[in-house]
Amino acid sequence: MKPLHPLLIDGVWTSPEESTDSFSAADPSTGEDLTAYFPLSGQATIDRLLNAAGLASRTLANTAPTALASFLDNYATAIDEHAEELATLAHRETGLPRRPRLLEVEIPRTIKQLRDAAQSARSEDWTMPTIDTAHDIRSRLESLAKPVLVMGPNNFPFAYNGICGGDFAAAVATGHAVIAKSHPAHPGTTQRLAELALVAATAAHLPPATVQLFYHCSPEVGLSLAGDSRLGAIGFTGSETAGRKIKAAADAVGTPGYFEMSGVNPVTILPGALVERPEEIAHEFCDSCHQGTGQFCTSPGLVLTVEGLGFDRFLAAAAKRFDGATLGPMLSRALPSHLKASVKALLHAGALMVARGTTPAETGFTVAPVLLRVSGRTFLNDPAVFQNEMFGPAALVVVAANSTELVQIAQRLNASLTGSIYSVTDQTDDLLYERISSILAPRIGRLLNDKMPTGVAVSPAMMHGGPFPAGGHPGFTAVGMPASLRRFGALRCYDHVRPHRLPASLRNENPTGKLWRSIDGVWTQSDASASG
Amino acid sequence: MKPLHPLLIDGVWTSPEESTDSFSAADPSTGEDLTAYFPLSGQATIDRLLNAAGLASRTLANTAPTALASFLDNYATAIDEHAEELATLAHRETGLPRRPRLLEVEIPRTIKQLRDAAQSARSEDWTMPTIDTAHDIRSRLESLAKPVLVMGPNNFPFAYNGICGGDFAAAVATGHAVIAKSHPAHPGTTQRLAELALVAATAAHLPPATVQLFYHCSPEVGLSLAGDSRLGAIGFTGSETAGRKIKAAADAVGTPGYFEMSGVNPVTILPGALVERPEEIAHEFCDSCHQGTGQFCTSPGLVLTVEGLGFDRFLAAAAKRFDGATLGPMLSRALPSHLKASVKALLHAGALMVARGTTPAETGFTVAPVLLRVSGRTFLNDPAVFQNEMFGPAALVVVAANSTELVQIAQRLNASLTGSIYSVTDQTDDLLYERISSILAPRIGRLLNDKMPTGVAVSPAMMHGGPFPAGGHPGFTAVGMPASLRRFGALRCYDHVRPHRLPASLRNENPTGKLWRSIDGVWTQSDASASG
Repeated sequence: MKPLHPLLIDGVWTSPEESTDSFSAADPSTGEDLTAYFPLSGQATIDRLLNAAGLASRTLANTAPTALASFLDNYATAIDEHAEELATLAHRETGLPRRPRLLEVEIPRTIKQLRDAAQSARSEDWTMPTIDTAHDIRSRLESLAKPVLVMGPNNFPFAYNGICGGDFAAAVATGHAVIAKSHPAHPGTTQRLAELALVAATAAHLPPATVQLFYHCSPEVGLSLAGDSRLGAIGFTGSETAGRKIKAAADAVGTPGYFEMSGVNPVTILPGALVERPEEIAHEFCDSCHQGTGQFCTSPGLVLTVEGLGFDRFLAAAAKRFDGATLGPMLSRALPSHLKASVKALLHAGALMVARGTTPAETGFTVAPVLLRVSGRTFLNDPAVFQNEMFGPAALVVVAANSTELVQIAQRLNASLTGSIYSVTDQTDDLLYERISSILAPRIGRLLNDKMPTGVAVSPAMMHGGPFPAGGHPGFTAVGMPASLRRFGALRCYDHVRPHRLPASLRNENPTGKLWRSIDGVWTQSDASASG
Repeated sequence: MKPLHPLLIDGVWTSPEESTDSFSAADPSTGEDLTAYFPLSGQATIDRLLNAAGLASRTLANTAPTALASFLDNYATAIDEHAEELATLAHRETGLPRRPRLLEVEIPRTIKQLRDAAQSARSEDWTMPTIDTAHDIRSRLESLAKPVLVMGPNNFPFAYNGICGGDFAAAVATGHAVIAKSHPAHPGTTQRLAELALVAATAAHLPPATVQLFYHCSPEVGLSLAGDSRLGAIGFTGSETAGRKIKAAADAVGTPGYFEMSGVNPVTILPGALVERPEEIAHEFCDSCHQGTGQFCTSPGLVLTVEGLGFDRFLAAAAKRFDGATLGPMLSRALPSHLKASVKALLHAGALMVARGTTPAETGFTVAPVLLRVSGRTFLNDPAVFQNEMFGPAALVVVAANSTELVQIAQRLNASLTGSIYSVTDQTDDLLYERISSILAPRIGRLLNDKMPTGVAVSPAMMHGGPFPAGGHPGFTAVGMPASLRRFGALRCYDHVRPHRLPASLRNENPTGKLWRSIDGVWTQSDASASG
């Protein structure tokens, strides 16, 4: 019998039942399976997780925000202190480079997110306290008082991990127990993180089931969990195929789910910019497309351009970068063949191969970067097929015959997280910019100028999300505090409730003198007038 | 052939196709069908509505908020000027009294909502502009740039009407064309309102399809419309049965829907209050339960109490009010028999009849108010059956043997829009209050103290909504500006966008000097620093 790694249930590292199926991750650098085995969980385990998390959530809904913040801060510190060890674990399971990616970018970002969430919990800025003194009606966002299920993706073992990423931080900061599902590509990293989380939660005197972990389950069990009305909300980052199924299960019982799925992130290069700086833009594009072996939800997968001298120079510069490129391995065994199949489908539909990188000789989940092109006319014949996401370092350049055709192409774009527009430095591209940006706006969450979409800043003004099916709800972002916290808030109103029974943040007196509240229509840090 | 009333499509009052089925409303006071006939619409009409509304929405998304506000204000004024005529129409179709209900309460409230929405459009306070100067990232809520479908209920011919109610006002104020579906109980009132709306929209130079109206359709056509991805969002107020189906259709294509459905609105009377002022509370309860013939989504349908002397006095006082009560007719032919069937089911399940009012001798959709009781023990045997909403002037009093049983009953409550708790004037009920209110909190949207739930103030701090299936999303309210407007907002981010291309409200300079914006984490009416 293979020894199986334990699950974290209600504060206890628990052996799975003996009959449990198991899986192991693989080392993308070598292609070899790792020898750590993790259990697939069944409904009995899910029930235990849900019941424990339900109890914990009812406690957490009434726990002082300072205790939640203390946990998040301590956990951030623990990740910082164990960064080398965690990066080594994650590198082995994902193939992502320890430096700069894991140790200098993703882990620091993860720590920042946890600390931002702690700060938001402490300040209660996400709760938007609103006071109507004339009616004596007061409201704010509060915990749902039910658990949040967080399912992270393959491509971020830290920043979006169900056990420590942005959704996790937002759910805990707003007073919820989290049931984290490990992505099966990096269960060992996730387990180690959960160990650190449990220690930090215990030190902050939070309920034992504040943080729980399971690794994997059958699709049936997963959908049963997503559709269980004991859940308060779901945070999901991953593929559209899986996301749609989970969303349907949650929708059926009215559970709000927040989904960050996919899209091709169109980059439009206007004629003036093509003429002005074709090589510079080509290099930015290639860097963005090759970064992380193209395994970002904001990877630029579609470039919209216009024929002409500038375009030829752009394409030549980009082709040169693709030709010579050798990238790191992909995250899992299936991804290189998926990418090859996607490329094949585009070629079959009429795209042409522009350039292809080299596949390193060594073993592992390696892949060659691919640059394709297609005419605007061909694209317009079947816009859907040319917008299938190619997950990995591949992109399709659509070459419009002229500006009119460029507009027609934009009008056929599906939903994406982002849309970038490059334009000439002076204002001569502005009329076309105006046209294209107004077509893009309802199709995307974030509009960029002269900038590639990869690199999602953790900013209060970020929108990392978009119209369905790029995101799950057009009004919410997965990244950036305090906005991402509001996803997990229930709006609760106190109508004529006696003052001593009100939450401190809704009493006339501002509890800290620093909390921003909307009182009679005005945002203020002052007290409400005593007449209220 | 019966002449059919026209539909409002793309700014033109349009005769339905000849083959169309039709319906008529009835006069609830007499029970007689009215002789105005309205068409049922098919897919061809729906397609025309959607296409016209799509075009209009793309224009409205970029229309000056002052023009939207001007339309809403002018429309409010037109309703005010035609109040007598509108009240007469609505009285005939709904049986609701012209005074005070329609002319003194509902129409003024409707006018206030339209004007509040205009004010919110003008001030842009719903958009929550957020600026991160260090990253040069800016975001705000914006129009979805797609139409909003608004379906109103039977019980508010004005305040929640798809053509002029709160959802309508919120959708237009945020830059959307509205496709309004009349409730089939009051199509004539709705048509007259649409006439006024069209005049006001034309005067404000809004696109002709800003306001469109159809009256009714088959369930198949309705679900096809709700599931059409040409829609941006749905606002629905009505029954849980219909709401669930529409929500499922919208969810399948990722369209955000906002649903305000049902619930029994539990009123808990704590032991001290029962002893202190049983008659006073009984009278408040009866007034609330009988108001509008009990046809409110916030009608108190369930009272939780505790045995004892106070309870006997409470019940006697309430029974006396029910015994003598003669109420106005219900809104439609089916409602009295639905109510009778609901009462019969409760009696069958073990409830006892406490008091029954009289049915007026005259014809019409009249009904006798009904007061039932059941023991806490019987309730706990089947909590679901005793929480089926009885739409109309009927309520069930649950009598717990003691406080412990009262807590157990509260723990079995389903989702509702509201929860009221009556307690003694001093603090001797407070321990039990604490327990009950913490159980209630995650099950309701609005908590009231010493107050019945009917009467939903149009307040910025209102939460009219609740957990599913009382509401559709726990984070949003259907009533109160600017919060209700935010339901229809898409969060859009501008990353490194050149200053002259930014929406005015996201530029460094505050466009009005009055707009509240969150700049680097601080709510302010000042400009952003020029370094940003």
